[in-house]
Amino acid sequence: MSSVRTGGGKVYLVGAGPGAADLLTMRAVKVLSRAEIIFHDALINKEILDHCSPECVIVPVGTRGGFRVPNRQNRIHRQLTDAAAQYTTIVRLKGGDPCIFGRGGEEMEFLTARGIPWEVIPGISTGIGGLSLLGLPVTHRDLSSSVTLLTGSRTASGEFGDLPLSAPLSASQTLVFYMPFRHFSEIAKRLIEHGMPADTPALCVSWLSYPQQTLVTAPLFQIGEVVAQAALEPPSLMVVGDVVGFWKQLKAQEQTPEDV
Amino acid sequence: MSSVRTGGGKVYLVGAGPGAADLLTMRAVKVLSRAEIIFHDALINKEILDHCSPECVIVPVGTRGGFRVPNRQNRIHRQLTDAAAQYTTIVRLKGGDPCIFGRGGEEMEFLTARGIPWEVIPGISTGIGGLSLLGLPVTHRDLSSSVTLLTGSRTASGEFGDLPLSAPLSASQTLVFYMPFRHFSEIAKRLIEHGMPADTPALCVSWLSYPQQTLVTAPLFQIGEVVAQAALEPPSLMVVGDVVGFWKQLKAQEQTPEDV
Repeated sequence: MSSVRTGGGKVYLVGAGPGAADLLTMRAVKVLSRAEIIFHDALINKEILDHCSPECVIVPVGTRGGFRVPNRQNRIHRQLTDAAAQYTTIVRLKGGDPCIFGRGGEEMEFLTARGIPWEVIPGISTGIGGLSLLGLPVTHRDLSSSVTLLTGSRTASGEFGDLPLSAPLSASQTLVFYMPFRHFSEIAKRLIEHGMPADTPALCVSWLSYPQQTLVTAPLFQIGEVVAQAALEPPSLMVVGDVVGFWKQLKAQEQTPEDV
Repeated sequence: MSSVRTGGGKVYLVGAGPGAADLLTMRAVKVLSRAEIIFHDALINKEILDHCSPECVIVPVGTRGGFRVPNRQNRIHRQLTDAAAQYTTIVRLKGGDPCIFGRGGEEMEFLTARGIPWEVIPGISTGIGGLSLLGLPVTHRDLSSSVTLLTGSRTASGEFGDLPLSAPLSASQTLVFYMPFRHFSEIAKRLIEHGMPADTPALCVSWLSYPQQTLVTAPLFQIGEVVAQAALEPPSLMVVGDVVGFWKQLKAQEQTPEDV
């Protein structure tokens, strides 16, 4: 066991939530305040780092806009290992929740194999709590009794997530695609090909919960075009299903309350 | 518009997270501290109420263990309306995230129709962040690129959630059933009938993040029996998919780190 590196350090995989700094959990704030070194993704709100002590070493490790950096993940693993040999409290800060399309699982695997203790402090995931924040419930007793979170990037199989595309899809299944980058039209086309009605309401939002939040809605068959017109930037999210129509009605009604 | 009741009050639909009191967001803590009245579900950690001021009126409105109380939801709507006429800051505190199987959508609909302002403060949803907390990543680059959250209760169609059961299911789609109560065996049977391999690893957990947390794992075809033997109580959650196997390996390895 001589080569297992254990400098006594523990790595906390911490979820930063969708963006707004006050959507961090109290447990996350506590560990940030005692962290000696923090490795953070690019897409986190820098105000969150104000919870760190002035002595804390801050190391940005993320990339933005979907660019792939070769061996980036290996480099992060190496950085975490080195830090665990030198420090007691190491934080790996990720947007949303560390285990939702955040490669948290890979980091846990790597740390475990090296005998480095770790712990996850969950965060508000953008595709669930971030949408709640907008007032968009992704499940609803009368409209949708399931919600599926999928990667908006192509997986090894060439599909977007493991959506069972052989099934006839229905607008009562809420689908949330994370980080669709430039694939909005393509995802919409695939969903329609597999039975999702072309007029199913869709919503795309970028920079959710930030001051620069931008949001568009359109029927599924038009969403790609509408997103292109609005020049929506990453980080973004796409939601498809009847719950989007429900949300639009709520918003319209907020402007002109019914006489009840 | 004379009958629209607007006493100036605003209703905050607040997510309490999976249980542990420090998994609340800072935004939630802030609104709790200035709430004048709180309507809370039964399944929230009572320590969370320590954030309220001593003058705050605390009203439990929830039921436990899956018992249905007729008109319960209507009564809550009426209570919220009355409170909005009397108070400025009203909190409706729900377990997990208010919009995941929490009937948050219905409350938003009701309040909007009556012209009562509302806002959602998201919480850590048990089936996402609660599992992260266990160290179980529900998505993983090599194992699962989607996760579906489904109700563990029967919907109007007689199914559990809107799972497209006509599709051949695969262990690489993570499925998370909320509150399966006594339906563990039945859900497992349905999944196997629809193509999910019988030996897909499954995990059931009750009282996640509480001191009395209880957790069992078994292959899908045995999970009902194992849950019954362990006498698992609600609130509970069932996770099915290869990620459960991944998690078991991690836990086993934590006991005996590899020589790397």
